[in-house]
Amino acid sequence: MTRHLMTQFDTDLNEIRAKLLEMGGKVEKMINDAMKSLVERNTELAATTIEYDHEINRLEVEIDERCLEVLALRQPTARDLRFITLALKIVTDLERIGDQCRNIAKRARELNELPPLKPYIDLPRMAGWSGTMVKEALDAFVNGDAELAYKVCRDDDYVDTLNEQIQRELLTYMIEDTSTITRAIKITAISKCLERIADHATNVAEMVIFMVKGKDIRHTSMVS
Amino acid sequence: MTRHLMTQFDTDLNEIRAKLLEMGGKVEKMINDAMKSLVERNTELAATTIEYDHEINRLEVEIDERCLEVLALRQPTARDLRFITLALKIVTDLERIGDQCRNIAKRARELNELPPLKPYIDLPRMAGWSGTMVKEALDAFVNGDAELAYKVCRDDDYVDTLNEQIQRELLTYMIEDTSTITRAIKITAISKCLERIADHATNVAEMVIFMVKGKDIRHTSMVS
Repeated sequence: MTRHLMTQFDTDLNEIRAKLLEMGGKVEKMINDAMKSLVERNTELAATTIEYDHEINRLEVEIDERCLEVLALRQPTARDLRFITLALKIVTDLERIGDQCRNIAKRARELNELPPLKPYIDLPRMAGWSGTMVKEALDAFVNGDAELAYKVCRDDDYVDTLNEQIQRELLTYMIEDTSTITRAIKITAISKCLERIADHATNVAEMVIFMVKGKDIRHTSMVS
Repeated sequence: MTRHLMTQFDTDLNEIRAKLLEMGGKVEKMINDAMKSLVERNTELAATTIEYDHEINRLEVEIDERCLEVLALRQPTARDLRFITLALKIVTDLERIGDQCRNIAKRARELNELPPLKPYIDLPRMAGWSGTMVKEALDAFVNGDAELAYKVCRDDDYVDTLNEQIQRELLTYMIEDTSTITRAIKITAISKCLERIADHATNVAEMVIFMVKGKDIRHTSMVS
């Protein structure tokens, strides 16, 4: 391979890296906006967030196509090949996080039409954790940082615990006062969406660990 | 490309296709076994199913590695490149379906220790639908059959409806008799797992439609 081609290839990889981080940043914004539309009862922001999912989907298609082009034109091998094929998988997780944010915003829009049930305290915390996990999983990917990826996997336990706590608390509401059921079910659904977002971040982190450390690490008790 | 290479490449693609179908068959078996372990209160089968997830994970790594090898050695372009990169994405969905089956078997094992709450009627139906969706999504992929993929996307609505129905029914149990709560929550979790399995099948089907029809179809109201 000539020096010229090497340079062009590096540019390609950097471009994919930058696009993925851009998509990650937009997904993080979507998590924050979806939560804000709920907490501040801002139905207009909920609508904007639902609409914004198109931007995430557009980026997915764009990055997918770019990866395919680089695979076809540059025919990378070994580490670079692994990087690009992993980028293809990660972009799918990011897109599905966008779907979950859209679902949260839809539930928020419905909840904003009803009287408030209780102040939201744990859900914003959970959204904060999940957003950080998404950011760190992507940072771990672009920097090949297995330690950070392990941290993301461990943090998933906090989100799972928060989700279970929220589910049980809402159940108590429903049992004590059946008039809360409709609202409690919607809030439960939002909690599940956040848990799934954290799951996607964890999936990305597990794939990064596999990329960095090789096949002996994936699917072991340390990361599952 | 020489005739010899073409033939070798076709063999590679057929091998990936066959391995994916093998993995799909094993995932289907896992869905059935997980459900059977619940319905027949068969804790031994639940344990076998949990253990079987290793086989699914092993296949994921094997197919991933095979795809990377083919990408590196044969440097496919256009349609073949798209096929292999999609196989890489699909294998991730199949692996996550395996995770959901493992979760179902774990809940089944716990439920088998407790008195039966009610006969399971809707859950096996949901499992049946989900298993069929997985099979059809994979068939759609290996045959490039967009019509079958559209059917899978439509069938997801039935699974979602069944899930909502089950969630509401279990909520009624919990409200009427709080001693059912622990069991009802576990059954609710199983219903959510099945719903996620159907989601994965739908994700695969949407990617197949995109592969066959091109970029204008993905993320439109027809498939979302």
